[in-house]
Amino acid sequence: MPNHGGELDSVLRALADPTRRAVVEMLAVSPAVVSELAAPFSMALPSLMQHLRVLEDAGVVTSEKHGRVRTVSLRPGALDVLHLWLGEQRTPAERQADRLGIHLTRSAPKAT
Amino acid sequence: MPNHGGELDSVLRALADPTRRAVVEMLAVSPAVVSELAAPFSMALPSLMQHLRVLEDAGVVTSEKHGRVRTVSLRPGALDVLHLWLGEQRTPAERQADRLGIHLTRSAPKAT
Repeated sequence: MPNHGGELDSVLRALADPTRRAVVEMLAVSPAVVSELAAPFSMALPSLMQHLRVLEDAGVVTSEKHGRVRTVSLRPGALDVLHLWLGEQRTPAERQADRLGIHLTRSAPKAT
Repeated sequence: MPNHGGELDSVLRALADPTRRAVVEMLAVSPAVVSELAAPFSMALPSLMQHLRVLEDAGVVTSEKHGRVRTVSLRPGALDVLHLWLGEQRTPAERQADRLGIHLTRSAPKAT
């Protein structure tokens, strides 16, 4: 079994916080500047910046500074390592259900 | 956006450790007794039991004691909350790629 090791450790730790997950949820919709990301939280800006740093260190987000404005984006494929690992942990019964689902999708009439 | 809150926090924190992920990987193959789970690790049994407790508290595994033997299983669907959350974080570009994938699966000749 492959061991995605340190990368998975840091991605999982980064996501194990509701504020950081809420930031990821916002960024999944579109990139945002730091003040937009801060708006929904009753949190001092330095605390939010700290959360962003954890997400960036884990490779979940990237950011770019233009003038005085920092724009944060979800790094494409950032969560793939976790998605992949999760897929590998399907139990035999779940895999059987997956195969049935694929069979049914293939047998279904095409969407029009 | 739905907030799976505390459940996700504890599942993510439980998985953010390589020993606990290795245990999940073993249990995805089949349930195992504690001594089998301990075998690959050079770790005192109480430390492994502590890891198992974190996984059980997070609802990732369940265990049953028969006589002196404790058997640990992956809880079916335990990782679904995380799978679901990850799916929700697909960016618009990734969603488009997903739809293309479904279209190609449906258009493909059936497996024989």
